[in-house]
Amino acid sequence: MDFKDLRVNGQRLQGSLEEMAKIGGTPGGGVQRLTLTDEDKQARDLFVSWLKELNLEITVDEMGNIFGKRPGRNNDLAPVMSGSHIDSQPKGGRFDGILGVMGPLEVLRTLHENNVETERPMVIVDWTNEEGSRFAPAMVASGVWAGALERDWVYDRTDIGGKRFEDELIRIGYKGTAACKKWPVHCYYEYHIEQGPILEMEGKLIGAPKGILCLHWYDIYLAGEANQVGPTPMEGRHDALCAAAEMILKVNQLPGRMGGNMVATVGEIQNYPNSRNIIPDKVHFTVDIRSWDDEHAIKAWELVRKDFEDIAANRGCPIKIEETWRVEHSPFDEKRVQLVLDSADQLGYSSLHMVSGAGHDASYMNQVCPTAMIFVPSIGGRSHVEVENTRWEDCEAGANVLLHALLQSANEKL
Amino acid sequence: MDFKDLRVNGQRLQGSLEEMAKIGGTPGGGVQRLTLTDEDKQARDLFVSWLKELNLEITVDEMGNIFGKRPGRNNDLAPVMSGSHIDSQPKGGRFDGILGVMGPLEVLRTLHENNVETERPMVIVDWTNEEGSRFAPAMVASGVWAGALERDWVYDRTDIGGKRFEDELIRIGYKGTAACKKWPVHCYYEYHIEQGPILEMEGKLIGAPKGILCLHWYDIYLAGEANQVGPTPMEGRHDALCAAAEMILKVNQLPGRMGGNMVATVGEIQNYPNSRNIIPDKVHFTVDIRSWDDEHAIKAWELVRKDFEDIAANRGCPIKIEETWRVEHSPFDEKRVQLVLDSADQLGYSSLHMVSGAGHDASYMNQVCPTAMIFVPSIGGRSHVEVENTRWEDCEAGANVLLHALLQSANEKL
Repeated sequence: MDFKDLRVNGQRLQGSLEEMAKIGGTPGGGVQRLTLTDEDKQARDLFVSWLKELNLEITVDEMGNIFGKRPGRNNDLAPVMSGSHIDSQPKGGRFDGILGVMGPLEVLRTLHENNVETERPMVIVDWTNEEGSRFAPAMVASGVWAGALERDWVYDRTDIGGKRFEDELIRIGYKGTAACKKWPVHCYYEYHIEQGPILEMEGKLIGAPKGILCLHWYDIYLAGEANQVGPTPMEGRHDALCAAAEMILKVNQLPGRMGGNMVATVGEIQNYPNSRNIIPDKVHFTVDIRSWDDEHAIKAWELVRKDFEDIAANRGCPIKIEETWRVEHSPFDEKRVQLVLDSADQLGYSSLHMVSGAGHDASYMNQVCPTAMIFVPSIGGRSHVEVENTRWEDCEAGANVLLHALLQSANEKL
Repeated sequence: MDFKDLRVNGQRLQGSLEEMAKIGGTPGGGVQRLTLTDEDKQARDLFVSWLKELNLEITVDEMGNIFGKRPGRNNDLAPVMSGSHIDSQPKGGRFDGILGVMGPLEVLRTLHENNVETERPMVIVDWTNEEGSRFAPAMVASGVWAGALERDWVYDRTDIGGKRFEDELIRIGYKGTAACKKWPVHCYYEYHIEQGPILEMEGKLIGAPKGILCLHWYDIYLAGEANQVGPTPMEGRHDALCAAAEMILKVNQLPGRMGGNMVATVGEIQNYPNSRNIIPDKVHFTVDIRSWDDEHAIKAWELVRKDFEDIAANRGCPIKIEETWRVEHSPFDEKRVQLVLDSADQLGYSSLHMVSGAGHDASYMNQVCPTAMIFVPSIGGRSHVEVENTRWEDCEAGANVLLHALLQSANEKL
């Protein structure tokens, strides 16, 4: 059989996704499968049972990452690898993460039933806790594997109920014995929904991100003066919520002022005492700035930081600013990105060279080996919500691109 | 003895206030004595013991209002009345409410030790749950007494833990047997801290509000579209928090645009899902508008409501507006207000004819009988906070004004 004609089974891929969507399925049509919960365990068990059907060599490491290895002709060569995550956001969707696990599973099934041998071994992976919504931060298990994070620090992360990461990992039976430590990988492909509207807007089927945007997080704390609203004249008020409102709009206007190539968002706000007849005296809010250009993002922050300080001074609301987290933009391996574009091309799919605004386990893998991603369109650009959706045909197309990118990579002798 | 020379005992008043401040005293120097809690009971018990020392006729009604009656020469005449409330805000101050109970107590003590007889009986009162911070809304017990609210509706109010008002009233032993129903009152004076900065700014000692501002409450609900912030371009976002931020600033600018004579405040906001990397898709916030001029307040609302609708349309964020509560402005009895001003004058105190921005039990009493209030300065205008403060000399001066307003009123034969 000519490998060029090989295709995944779209029906089977859809079936796997639908079966997974039942685990933690929500009335709103989404999925809630928070990391290290009973739902996560149930989905992992199902995944492992599917790996066993393919006679893969299964390893669970001490972070709960699940690897399934398919031997190659020459097992001394570094394997090619693909995977993503089984966990979801609270009230998340049926595609985020799981598509990138069911995709390579479908690839391996296709190779299996066609008795296709590859030169190098192939590894499928489910990374623990990509979302970070139960245990912050995100992508911790690929982070530990890549050597960027400390295992014991992650073990001690607690959820909102005070439960430890390690204890919950043990509880669901997925604290393995293998060290969570990188080993040589020839290259890594992560298949994922786009989570944005660009592919849909551009009318393209396959996205090949050249890398992941930089990510800068800030925490802003404002102080005001609480008083009964009725007897307190407008003049001389120190209303921390009004100061925050001005700042939120400055953040929203920032990409326009900087001439694009970035997004800037305030997603979270806490207001105190949060009583309708008391002037707010304490506000905390977050700022999230992302760009392909790290310097551009920092210049934007410096501009808006100056605005914040002016607004705080004008309103007499002392401000405290924390620069919480900065991750530089992560350019993927050009050759691997090109291979994704070429594979799409050979399959007759339209494609787009783009960027990824969201972080993925691929960010950490990119520190270990040549990495690329494959995106398929999110309907209406919706993600991290129950109505998140992607056409089944598009899921199949992305899996075919993954199949061919993996096949070609797995047959590279050097 | 010439009544003109009669003065309260400032030391004793201070002592009573200090003893009350121990009950529910907070580390920050304030008081937390929420209605119908153990602290409220303890303060009520102390208050009742003090009433007993003066041989007053004590009545507790079915709303827990405590009345202490001092006979006059002619007990067929309607009594004069004064009081306020013992309950406090969460982390409130040492003066709000309690000054208006300890003030008339000090007046009665002064009359008692000087064997002063009055024509009419005099009644001191502690109204249950003025604050409304544990059981909403505020001023319920004077409201029931005045016939403006239903007793059983108030009984069924629940706190945040689901406890019923009536059950808690029984628990602390203050559900009395007397009907909570108005009876003839000659006039009512309520002594209170100003809770605003006007007296301090004007350099005046005694405030005589001509009435209480109108109070309009609104609840605004905005919908947006939640999405992962990284992959979602700024164009086409429907960010409910940005829409709310614009609206909050419009509310803040409203008094300036309307040419004053009002205050407008957003005190409360809830944002969903309130996650730093998801665009907010649901926001609720409150609007509080107060003015002496009801029409002015309604015109202001119409103006800002139009702004809200424009902002919602521009941002593609559907808006739902609830007009939650409207209380008309409440002008006090001119003759009683003048008597407060005259009493201050005769005592050599500076005074100011002003308005009350905050609501008080006096609002409901104003529906029953001629009513006036006596204000003393709040240092820095601060109230509903632990640092709320008033000079002891000013507390004494206000009590002297109350003494003379009550004395003169209690000796009116008609």
